[in-house]
Amino acid sequence: MALTTEQQDEIDQLRANVQPTRRAVVPALEEVLYQAVPVLDHGFVRVIDYMGDDSAVVQAARVSYGRGTKKVTEDRGLIHYLMRHRHSTPFEMCEIKFHVKLPIFVARQWIRHRTANVNEYSARYSILDREFYIPQPAQLAAQSVSNRQGRGAVLQGAEAARVLELLKADSTQAYDHYIEMLNEAEDGTPIDANRQGLARELARMNLSLNFYTQWYWKVDLQNFMHFLSLRADAHAQYEIRVFADAMLDILRRWVPLTFEAFEQHRLHGVSLSKNAIDAVRRMLKGETVTEADSGLGKREWAELQHVLKGHD
Amino acid sequence: MALTTEQQDEIDQLRANVQPTRRAVVPALEEVLYQAVPVLDHGFVRVIDYMGDDSAVVQAARVSYGRGTKKVTEDRGLIHYLMRHRHSTPFEMCEIKFHVKLPIFVARQWIRHRTANVNEYSARYSILDREFYIPQPAQLAAQSVSNRQGRGAVLQGAEAARVLELLKADSTQAYDHYIEMLNEAEDGTPIDANRQGLARELARMNLSLNFYTQWYWKVDLQNFMHFLSLRADAHAQYEIRVFADAMLDILRRWVPLTFEAFEQHRLHGVSLSKNAIDAVRRMLKGETVTEADSGLGKREWAELQHVLKGHD
Amino acid sequence: MALTTEQQDEIDQLRANVQPTRRAVVPALEEVLYQAVPVLDHGFVRVIDYMGDDSAVVQAARVSYGRGTKKVTEDRGLIHYLMRHRHSTPFEMCEIKFHVKLPIFVARQWIRHRTANVNEYSARYSILDREFYIPQPAQLAAQSVSNRQGRGAVLQGAEAARVLELLKADSTQAYDHYIEMLNEAEDGTPIDANRQGLARELARMNLSLNFYTQWYWKVDLQNFMHFLSLRADAHAQYEIRVFADAMLDILRRWVPLTFEAFEQHRLHGVSLSKNAIDAVRRMLKGETVTEADSGLGKREWAELQHVLKGHD
Amino acid sequence: MALTTEQQDEIDQLRANVQPTRRAVVPALEEVLYQAVPVLDHGFVRVIDYMGDDSAVVQAARVSYGRGTKKVTEDRGLIHYLMRHRHSTPFEMCEIKFHVKLPIFVARQWIRHRTANVNEYSARYSILDREFYIPQPAQLAAQSVSNRQGRGAVLQGAEAARVLELLKADSTQAYDHYIEMLNEAEDGTPIDANRQGLARELARMNLSLNFYTQWYWKVDLQNFMHFLSLRADAHAQYEIRVFADAMLDILRRWVPLTFEAFEQHRLHGVSLSKNAIDAVRRMLKGETVTEADSGLGKREWAELQHVLKGHD
Repeated sequence: MALTTEQQDEIDQLRANVQPTRRAVVPALEEVLYQAVPVLDHGFVRVIDYMGDDSAVVQAARVSYGRGTKKVTEDRGLIHYLMRHRHSTPFEMCEIKFHVKLPIFVARQWIRHRTANVNEYSARYSILDREFYIPQPAQLAAQSVSNRQGRGAVLQGAEAARVLELLKADSTQAYDHYIEMLNEAEDGTPIDANRQGLARELARMNLSLNFYTQWYWKVDLQNFMHFLSLRADAHAQYEIRVFADAMLDILRRWVPLTFEAFEQHRLHGVSLSKNAIDAVRRMLKGETVTEADSGLGKREWAELQHVLKGHD
Repeated sequence: MALTTEQQDEIDQLRANVQPTRRAVVPALEEVLYQAVPVLDHGFVRVIDYMGDDSAVVQAARVSYGRGTKKVTEDRGLIHYLMRHRHSTPFEMCEIKFHVKLPIFVARQWIRHRTANVNEYSARYSILDREFYIPQPAQLAAQSVSNRQGRGAVLQGAEAARVLELLKADSTQAYDHYIEMLNEAEDGTPIDANRQGLARELARMNLSLNFYTQWYWKVDLQNFMHFLSLRADAHAQYEIRVFADAMLDILRRWVPLTFEAFEQHRLHGVSLSKNAIDAVRRMLKGETVTEADSGLGKREWAELQHVLKGHD
Repeated sequence: MALTTEQQDEIDQLRANVQPTRRAVVPALEEVLYQAVPVLDHGFVRVIDYMGDDSAVVQAARVSYGRGTKKVTEDRGLIHYLMRHRHSTPFEMCEIKFHVKLPIFVARQWIRHRTANVNEYSARYSILDREFYIPQPAQLAAQSVSNRQGRGAVLQGAEAARVLELLKADSTQAYDHYIEMLNEAEDGTPIDANRQGLARELARMNLSLNFYTQWYWKVDLQNFMHFLSLRADAHAQYEIRVFADAMLDILRRWVPLTFEAFEQHRLHGVSLSKNAIDAVRRMLKGETVTEADSGLGKREWAELQHVLKGHD
Repeated sequence: MALTTEQQDEIDQLRANVQPTRRAVVPALEEVLYQAVPVLDHGFVRVIDYMGDDSAVVQAARVSYGRGTKKVTEDRGLIHYLMRHRHSTPFEMCEIKFHVKLPIFVARQWIRHRTANVNEYSARYSILDREFYIPQPAQLAAQSVSNRQGRGAVLQGAEAARVLELLKADSTQAYDHYIEMLNEAEDGTPIDANRQGLARELARMNLSLNFYTQWYWKVDLQNFMHFLSLRADAHAQYEIRVFADAMLDILRRWVPLTFEAFEQHRLHGVSLSKNAIDAVRRMLKGETVTEADSGLGKREWAELQHVLKGHD
C-alpha cells in the first residue's frame, strides 16, 4: 500500500474532526475509523462510516422505543437466538461503509455479492495508477490436481521465478502502452503534441486483471456476515480471503456480541445433510457406519469424516 | 399519537446522551433525532439513526480519500448533475432508519417498496394496542366517478356520520373480542381462569385493517427518494401521503443539497413521451396542435394540457 | 375454495390451448398447469407459468452451449454438490409464477420475503369478495405457555365454540358494513340512490385480517426454496405452512433432482454451532457430555438432544 | 464470433427439439431461440429461455384468472398507461434468459445492474479461450475534450495504426504467457513435463480487460427495459451499446406492445426539471426565455435547447 502524503493528510484531517452526536457510537470502531488497513501489496480496507451497534439488533428484534438493551447477558442470549434460527432482519438494521483498494480480478469475484451498494473509481473518466498485484512467492501455487478450483503445492525455483518475471514484465508493458495510447503525461498535458490520445474508456482495455481499482462498498450487517462466511473461508481464493480476514477484525470491533454469535453459528458451525446426521445418530448408538451404507456420496462422506475429526 | 410517559422518558434519555464521533454529523437532523412527529390520529415517524450527508454523495461520485467536498457551489452542481442523469449509486451511500407507527392498510402499501429493511412489531408474539385509525370528517371522501383509484367529494351529513359510527363501533367490537379470545388482562393474567385463551397468532385475525402496527424501516437515500416521489404525490392515498410529507421535511434537514435537486428534478419535474414532446415542439413553432393530430390518447392529452398549464 | 363457473371456464380454456415450443418443457408440471390446488377454506395455489428445469441448473453451472446435461447420475451429483456448498446462482436460473388466494394475515407474513415479484389484487380499485378464513376446530389452538411464538393445546367445548362464533359474526358484520359504506350493489348500481358511497380505498379498512386477498407471485428457484425452507417448517404458523406444503408438491413435479437435494440438504438437514459439533465429537469419542460442560445454553442444548434423537 | 462446429451442433439440436406446452408461447421469439446474434468481433447474444408475453403484463395488472387479454386495443392502452405512470410490477411478471459472450471490460459495466441473475464462466475452474476484442478502426476514438466521459474524433493514420498494433501485440503476448504459466496444452497434458503449472485462478490475472468472457444473464422485463434505457443510449460506451441494440430487437420480437410503449415513454421520452418545464411554459406564452433568467445551469440549458430542437 502506498498512500500519498496528500491522501494520508486527508485521512488525518478527517480523524481529527470530532463532533457530538446523539446516535449510537462504537468507540472501538471509532479508533480505526478512516485508517487504511494494508492488504496484499498495494491494497487496503478502510471503514468510512457505520450505523448502529449490537443494541440496534436487539432494538429491532424487540421493536422498542429506547435502545432496546436490557442486560448484556439477555442481549447476548437474544443475539445468539436470532443467529441460530436465521432471523436475519434484525441484523439488517446496522450498516457499514468501506473504501477498498483491490486487484480487478478480486473485484470481479466480490461484485457477485449483489446486496450491497458500490461506487467504483471510473476508468472511463479517470486514469488508473501504475499499481498491479504481484503475488508473494509463498502464494505462487500450482493448480491442484485433486480439486479443479483449488491450489496445489507452491511453485519452486526456476518455474516460480519465470512466473514472477512474466507477471511483472507484462504488467509493466501493459501500463506503458496504456499511457502511450492515452498520450497524457501526469500533469495532463499531451506527451506528443501531434497525437490526440485514445479515449480513456478504450485505452483501459489494455490493462490486465491484476491492476488495482478502488471502490466504496456499503453493506448491511446481515449481508456483510454472509460475505464473510463465504470469503473468510478456506475455499475462497487467497487474494479475496485476505480482505475478508481484515474485515473480520473490523466486525469484532464494531459488534462484539454479534461477532461472537457469528463465529459460533456460522464461521465455525457446520451443516449436515439428512443422511449425514442419520449417520451420526447411528454412530452415537454404537453402530459402525461405512461409506457404502451411509447413503452419502464419496465426497460428502470424506467431508463428514473431516468434520467429525474436528475440522470446520 | 399517544406516547406513554415511559416511552417519552426513553426517548428523552436517548436524546440526552451525547457522545463524540469522527463520523459525518448533521446538526439539523440531530435536533429532531428520536423525536416522534405525529401523523394521523395515533401514528408517528421518528428518525432513529442516519449515516452520511450531502458530502457522502459527492465523495462516492468522486471515490475520494477525504470528505469529497470541494466548494458548496461545485457540490451542488455535481448533485444536480447526478440527479438529472439518474446516476443513482452515489445516493445509495447514505442510509436512514425510522421508527414508524401506522395503520395496517397503510403498512400494506408501504411494504410494496422492497428495497428497504423492515422489522415489524409481531402480533404472533405480542398483543396489539387498542389503537385504530378513524378518518377526520374532511377525509371521508366518496368514490371518484371519473377515476377508479381516486377520491371524489367529501361525504356530508347523515352519510358521513353513519360511516364514522360504523368504523368506530366495528373497530371497538373487534378489539373487545380480540381480548376476549386471548383471555388475557393487561397485566398478563387470565381474564377467566377457566379458559386457556386463543393463540395470539390466531386471535389477531379478528382485527381490522385500520388497527395500528409499528416497525423499524431502514432505507438508503436513493430508495428513500424513490419512495417519496411515489408517495408524496397527488396520486397517492391520503393516509400514506401524510407520512411521506412528514418525511420530506426530514429529507430537507438531512441532505439539503440533495433535497433541492430532488424537488427540482423529481418532485416537480415532468416526464414527457415522444409524442408529447413532439407536440410541444410543434407548439413552440407556432403550430396549433390538437388531440387528434398529436398522436396522444385522450388521457395523456389531458395530462399534457395539465402540465403545460403549470401543474406538476 | 369456490372458483366460479366463469373462472373455471377460463382455466379450462387455458389448459386446452397447447402450442409447440423450443423451450425446455416439464410434462409433470404441465399436467397441473393453471389448476387450482385448494388450501384452507377459500384459498388456493395455481402454477401460472414456469421457466427452466433441472437441466437449466446444470447448464448454468457449466455455462454450456447446449442443454448442459450429461448423464442423469452426473447431473444429480452436480446438483447435490451445488446445494451442499450453497452455490446459489445456478438455482436462480429457473423461475416460477403462482396465482395465490390467501388470508390477509398470511399475505402479511409472506410478503416479508422480498426477493420475489408480486402483483396483488387492489382494494383501492376493486371490491373484495365476501370470503374470510374461519379455522377448523382442530386448528383452534391455545397460546403456548412455553413458547411465546407457538400454539399449545387445542381449545375445547364452550371456549372453542365461542371463538368460532365471534370470528364468524365479526367477519360477517365487517363485510356487511363494508358494502353499506360503499353503497354499491353487486351489479355496480348504488344501493341507496341518495348516498354517494365511501371511496373503496377507505371502506376496505373495516375488513379484518382474515379476509382473503389474491396475488401473482413470481420467484426464482433459489428464493422459492428459501421460502419453503422457512415456511414448510414446524416453526411456521399453520396457516402459511399449508400453502408451503402444497407448493412442495409442485417443486417435486417441476425439478425432481433439485427437490431431492433440497430435501436432503435443507429441509431435513441440520445446522450445528461450533459448541454443538464439539459436543458431538466428544460424544463420539465416548465422553459423557452434559449441558453444563457443553458450552451450550439451555435452549440450544435441548435442541441438540432433539436433533440427535432423530427429529429435524 | 466463432462458434465451433460442436457448439453450432448443440444449438441446432436444441432448435430441432419441439414439444407441446400449455404456457404462453411467442412464435416470433421462438424463431430466433438459441441462435447466436453476433456482436463485436467475437461476442454474441443468444436468447436461451423466456417466460410470459404482453398478455402476462395485462394479466398481472388485472390479477385475473385467464390470460387477462381483452381486446388488443384495450391491452395496448393499459400497457401504455402502466408505462407512463411507472407502474413497474406488472412488467416484472415476464422473464428472459440470455447467453452472452462479451469482453471483460464490458462485463464490468454490465454487472453494475444488480437486479439480474448471473452465472459466469469461471476462470478459476476453466481455461479461457484465445479471444480478445480489437476495435474496428472507426471506433478508435480520441478522448473528448468537452466531455470527460465521451469519445471525440476518430484517430487517424499512424496513431490509429500504432494503437491497433499495441492492442493486438499485448493481448497476444498476454495469452501466450498465460498458457505458458498454466503449462497446459489444449488436450490438457503438460507442455513441459518438468513444470507443475500455475493455478488457473492465478494465471488468469495476466489477461487484459479486452479478453472475452461469457455468462448466462436472466432478468425480468422491467429490469431488462431499465438496462436497455441506460445502455441503448447515446451516453453509453459503444462497446456495451451494441449489445443493448441487439437486445432491443429481441425485446420487439418478444413483447411488441410493451416495446412500442417503451420506445414512446422511455427510449424517446424526455424528463424535464421544474425549471425546464417552467421555461417551456413561458416560451409557449410567447415570452423570450434566456439562459440567465431560466434558472437553469449552463449544461442543463444546453440540454433543453437540444431537446426542444427535436433530439432525444
